[in-house]
Amino acid sequence: MRELTLDLGERSYPIRIAPALLAENDWPAFIAGNQACVVTNETIAPLYLESVLARLDGKRVSVVTLPDGEEHKTLSTLNQIFDRLLEDNHTRKTTLIALGGGVVGDMTGFAAACYQRGVPFIQLPTTLLSMVDSSVGGKTGVNHALGKNMIGAFYQPECVIIDTSTLATLPAREFAAGLAEVLKYGLIADLPFYNWLEANWDGLLARDPELLAEAILRSCENKAKVVAEDEREGGRRAILNLGHTFGHAIETATGYGSWLHGEAVATGMLMAARLSADLGWIAEVEVERLASLLKCAQLPLKPPADMTAEQFLSLMARDKKVLDGRLRLVLLRGLGEAIVTDEVDQAQIVGAIEALR
Amino acid sequence: MRELTLDLGERSYPIRIAPALLAENDWPAFIAGNQACVVTNETIAPLYLESVLARLDGKRVSVVTLPDGEEHKTLSTLNQIFDRLLEDNHTRKTTLIALGGGVVGDMTGFAAACYQRGVPFIQLPTTLLSMVDSSVGGKTGVNHALGKNMIGAFYQPECVIIDTSTLATLPAREFAAGLAEVLKYGLIADLPFYNWLEANWDGLLARDPELLAEAILRSCENKAKVVAEDEREGGRRAILNLGHTFGHAIETATGYGSWLHGEAVATGMLMAARLSADLGWIAEVEVERLASLLKCAQLPLKPPADMTAEQFLSLMARDKKVLDGRLRLVLLRGLGEAIVTDEVDQAQIVGAIEALR
Repeated sequence: MRELTLDLGERSYPIRIAPALLAENDWPAFIAGNQACVVTNETIAPLYLESVLARLDGKRVSVVTLPDGEEHKTLSTLNQIFDRLLEDNHTRKTTLIALGGGVVGDMTGFAAACYQRGVPFIQLPTTLLSMVDSSVGGKTGVNHALGKNMIGAFYQPECVIIDTSTLATLPAREFAAGLAEVLKYGLIADLPFYNWLEANWDGLLARDPELLAEAILRSCENKAKVVAEDEREGGRRAILNLGHTFGHAIETATGYGSWLHGEAVATGMLMAARLSADLGWIAEVEVERLASLLKCAQLPLKPPADMTAEQFLSLMARDKKVLDGRLRLVLLRGLGEAIVTDEVDQAQIVGAIEALR
Repeated sequence: MRELTLDLGERSYPIRIAPALLAENDWPAFIAGNQACVVTNETIAPLYLESVLARLDGKRVSVVTLPDGEEHKTLSTLNQIFDRLLEDNHTRKTTLIALGGGVVGDMTGFAAACYQRGVPFIQLPTTLLSMVDSSVGGKTGVNHALGKNMIGAFYQPECVIIDTSTLATLPAREFAAGLAEVLKYGLIADLPFYNWLEANWDGLLARDPELLAEAILRSCENKAKVVAEDEREGGRRAILNLGHTFGHAIETATGYGSWLHGEAVATGMLMAARLSADLGWIAEVEVERLASLLKCAQLPLKPPADMTAEQFLSLMARDKKVLDGRLRLVLLRGLGEAIVTDEVDQAQIVGAIEALR
């Protein structure tokens, strides 16, 4: 088993990575009381709910099965979790358990942050994207019709249990979307990892278990390091949003659900790389190198055909990183070195968007 | 001006108490950025919104005017605040300003806790109850059909500005409801204050400005002391809930809005006193003394006629203080000395409820 710790003082927690952890690891020891509520979705429940419930024998356990998909990551779906918790008399000593991908994890974490003003929760991510990104670091929340992840909390789990066996059932499109976030860590802060990913790209696409476990570990290590330095995104943590400002605009414009988050981030990263090359910060060949990796993973290289540059700018103006009316973008000062900047000319942003449309 | 500090390390903040503070105090200095959003309600807006907006000249200010009343303290009303913030492109550097009573303060604070995962907020309480209770201490949230304040966050404001001039427009019923919470501080932890309140009860009911300012200060001092010791209600903070377990049951049973929170707490405190006397912890005469103070303030001495003891127990089972299935009650071990206990026999609780019906 690979294990690392996200170091946040008294809110520190372990991240464990190995096959068969749901069934075999002692993660139920993180449940302090005699009550728990498993939150999952329609897709994951038939696959893994039974084996999780088998581990909770002897406790009073409720289950909430949400509809699957980013379009359900809303306040009103969140309320379904609260309904169940209250109907079943869950107290402030209950533990919520997120079993599923990023949507389930983000909503369960936010429900835990708010239920009776805060109860503990556990992350059991079952998608590559949630394993390397959303389950680690305590960003929780829901979308709003006017913007993604606009309502939420910084709230850390008790542990993150990454059972890599669950990746076997992950659809190809979602797997590729997760790889986009893996590439992100190389691009923003870890050039050796980026080179390693490129060298092992075919094996990763073939879901080689050993390569995957290593890629997940390196991703989590990179994320844990950034989060430990800046839990509440006062500064450096924003680099984790490479490609996300463009990507969120795509997700909002398409109404959540038609593009996967990782797909939107993939295209967004390419836009950020394009802009970085236009600014002379990275070589032209690096944009092509990234495009080639994304293409091999069958990730989208272009934004939706009907999205104008104007629409991008208007949606990006609602980004959480906007400060005093100035758009702040995560760009690549070099390969493996992201920065946050508000000094990019609007015409240059439009140019990079147009270049990819 | 009277001033005290709620001491919570780097989350400490001042509480200022005096007439005319909205118009004259330098509270706008607590707004760090150039954006703000005032959240108020239909009743308060015509009275004080203009004078607050006059203090925000030069900033980009939005206003959200909510419907008045506890029955609107819901997730869906909360979403109205998020709608406005997003429509007006408020960033994570905006400051929310709660102008109103407890409902406005609790919802604004919770909106601030969740909007873009947390923005600063300021409390400008305009009711006696919110001045002495809800605006101080960082408990924020909304109700759920199945329980009061079940969804929320611990989230502290930048400052609490108590403009006692606003009490002049407070309806008599709400004023009395606030006095119930003032009495609570005497009952739970400050016998000299309780005696002072009794000695000055007529003057307080006549809204003598000097007596009121002193009563608010002493109440805030008591609350600040308890909160500083136990911000997240791991233990001692629960004593602030004297009368609230019974009171919340009344509020939930009557559907929020027909009973004021302070009225339900008044009756709940009398039930707690009754039970404490039944247990031999306080003298019989102390129950009568409290009943007499409540009666002078025209506060209710009996629960709703159609509420059975069974209904009380079933609703109280959802209280946030319930632990491992055991109801925990705040009772009076002596006058001016509250304790939290789970060792009261159910029959005795029923007896106290029946005695007051």
